[in-house]
Amino acid sequence: MKRFRDSFEQISIATHLLKWTLYVIPISVTVGSLVALFLWLLEKVTYLHWQHQWLLFLLPLGGVLIYFLYKYLGKNSDAGNNLIMDEIHQPGGGVPARMAPLVLAATVITHLFGGSAGREGTAVQIGGSIANFFARTLHFSKEDVKMLLMTGIAAGFGAVFGTPITGAIFALEVLAVGRIKHDALMPCFIASLLADITSSAWGIHHTHYHILFSEVEKTYFSFIHFDFVLLIKVIVAGTLFGLVGFTFAEVSHTIKNYSNRWIKTKWLIPVIGGVIIIGFTYLLGTQDYLGLGVTNPRSGGVSIVSCFNEGGATRFSWLWKLLFTAITLGMGFKGGEVTPLFFIGAALGNAIAVVSGAPVDLMAGLGFIAVFAGATNTPIACTIMGAELFGTHNLLYYAVACFTAYYFSGHSGIYHAQRVAVSKV
Amino acid sequence: MKRFRDSFEQISIATHLLKWTLYVIPISVTVGSLVALFLWLLEKVTYLHWQHQWLLFLLPLGGVLIYFLYKYLGKNSDAGNNLIMDEIHQPGGGVPARMAPLVLAATVITHLFGGSAGREGTAVQIGGSIANFFARTLHFSKEDVKMLLMTGIAAGFGAVFGTPITGAIFALEVLAVGRIKHDALMPCFIASLLADITSSAWGIHHTHYHILFSEVEKTYFSFIHFDFVLLIKVIVAGTLFGLVGFTFAEVSHTIKNYSNRWIKTKWLIPVIGGVIIIGFTYLLGTQDYLGLGVTNPRSGGVSIVSCFNEGGATRFSWLWKLLFTAITLGMGFKGGEVTPLFFIGAALGNAIAVVSGAPVDLMAGLGFIAVFAGATNTPIACTIMGAELFGTHNLLYYAVACFTAYYFSGHSGIYHAQRVAVSKV
Repeated sequence: MKRFRDSFEQISIATHLLKWTLYVIPISVTVGSLVALFLWLLEKVTYLHWQHQWLLFLLPLGGVLIYFLYKYLGKNSDAGNNLIMDEIHQPGGGVPARMAPLVLAATVITHLFGGSAGREGTAVQIGGSIANFFARTLHFSKEDVKMLLMTGIAAGFGAVFGTPITGAIFALEVLAVGRIKHDALMPCFIASLLADITSSAWGIHHTHYHILFSEVEKTYFSFIHFDFVLLIKVIVAGTLFGLVGFTFAEVSHTIKNYSNRWIKTKWLIPVIGGVIIIGFTYLLGTQDYLGLGVTNPRSGGVSIVSCFNEGGATRFSWLWKLLFTAITLGMGFKGGEVTPLFFIGAALGNAIAVVSGAPVDLMAGLGFIAVFAGATNTPIACTIMGAELFGTHNLLYYAVACFTAYYFSGHSGIYHAQRVAVSKV
Repeated sequence: MKRFRDSFEQISIATHLLKWTLYVIPISVTVGSLVALFLWLLEKVTYLHWQHQWLLFLLPLGGVLIYFLYKYLGKNSDAGNNLIMDEIHQPGGGVPARMAPLVLAATVITHLFGGSAGREGTAVQIGGSIANFFARTLHFSKEDVKMLLMTGIAAGFGAVFGTPITGAIFALEVLAVGRIKHDALMPCFIASLLADITSSAWGIHHTHYHILFSEVEKTYFSFIHFDFVLLIKVIVAGTLFGLVGFTFAEVSHTIKNYSNRWIKTKWLIPVIGGVIIIGFTYLLGTQDYLGLGVTNPRSGGVSIVSCFNEGGATRFSWLWKLLFTAITLGMGFKGGEVTPLFFIGAALGNAIAVVSGAPVDLMAGLGFIAVFAGATNTPIACTIMGAELFGTHNLLYYAVACFTAYYFSGHSGIYHAQRVAVSKV
């Protein structure tokens, strides 16, 4: 009898998977295509900004435009990623379909005029909004809507960075601090993978990062084939990555709260934010901290890619990128936090490598994934991201850096809708 | 004020980590050393058995010896891994210190006489038993004992396979189906890493497996740079890996239950088990399915390593290894299930590759990790294990195979103490 029931169990699992595969296909193809469009537009406006640097002076105006876009068309879209996470925890009014076009337009505007922002927030919001649209059209149950929203997050994340496994695990891990639940494991993975395949099919290529460092067996003690000194450097670096992830989240929240409290005329917030960005740019005499920052048109300029090389970042590049991004996103512009977090981490890793004598490319790569792991409380997803982006030669150090950063970023993170499932102490 | 409290938070996290690092150091060094001793002994008795194949005829006698060892000295040690998991879920009488030497001796006896068994169960029991011994000696609280037992599992697993990250994630993922809780993330990782470093320092080397397959961009459709045909083969294979993981768990439990019900004189169970193993060996005319099976002294013989090459396994090698192991472990002999699961998976992968025309080394590697993922319900740990053992070239396929196998293995697994946290449907 038990055996009989068991064989039914496999059949109901197969049915479940088949059902979700069918649900997820239209969503992930749509999300993958929209993310491809978004990345293509982003590349165009980034080049445009590089060619016409005076566009920076229109940043305050761009901010006003975004403000009124959201005020008159946005409904509750402004809550962004947090709205999607809230809807997963506690289904309410749903994620509006308009969120997708709005956040896409607003992010493109932000980047055109040189705001310092990322991509993943936008992609995730596109994912959540499209998933919710499908769910509403087909009258899904609340439980199924939750699952679909998770697949939307996974699809957006997987497509925007070209990391399908990370996309799936991220969607499961980001919802609550300290827990991965496998309930949506396969649907999220299918969504993330199909969205990535779709955006690749549209001709999207992702930047390749290289860590050439590969451990040589050191022999401090003849019987220990392990570089303890490097391990300790990575632990210290991981602590700093966590603290900087924490700082980024705190500074962003603080800027957002105080600018909302102090500046009563709301459309003035992005104007003032834009002016501050322009001021900092001229104070520093460089445009390096504007925009996405993955590459830099100026030879010798700081970018994520340059951070992997010696001399590719100054000692405080990470701090400047942190401030530029916190001001941009905290004062009404749109975009993700993750690519700037990659920049902050890679630049900090570069600086740590210079001070500590550790390999620059390794430390930049560790900062890239670990500051993000700390700020979003997703240590396992980020360890896997290290493997997806950089290969496994240094997998052990990815885990050490991400796990340490996770602990030292504390319980708050960049998403206030993230709940605490398991305390870190 | 909030900022002030937050800065205390980081300090209490640092104190927490420091405390656990200090707790974990003696445990992981002890566990790493005992595992090194165990692996060294295992190698010796495996060679001894290869040189003196008549030792197989003493297998029934070895079984009686193990039976009386556990009967007169074992207390509740016989429950093995399940006892450790039960103590983590619901602290009770604790894990007896005698479990470590007993399981070590019993596993060595099993392998000396040619029983088909593995290593991880033994290593995990050594870990849990040592951790519990420390906890009792130092009068730890119940909460801390739970954490320590988890670090014991991680230390044993990480040391026995040389996979420190997998060891940590496995300890968190195996406790309940469908969930990873990060509460012991760092303590488990430190334990796993230090135990691995310790056993390496004792001169233990782990077998290296190689997947040379690396995807070439196929162009079925000029705009999709992705091999859909291989993906579908991997999904089908993953389903079979999951079903075979399920079958292994079911057959083992059934053999154990029925032999206990039908054979009233308990010491006769291993005698009969040993005789059946001898019978099957002569029926098949090969000793390939005895012992650990990582390598094979006979040129052309089947082993885990041979499965990575074309012609390295017959079409039903996986089935024979499954039966040999289920009989060995279900009828009173000792050892782990995991290395045989690697064998079963790699052999099945080899057979699937031959039938489907997929790359043999890739399929063998996928079976290696995915049957294990299915039978123990640990898809994320096993995906990471793929990266730790084989490198990341094919990371995507590791995830596809392990996640699919996880779903199709159903809710039961080889550990009956594992709870179901999140249903698969």
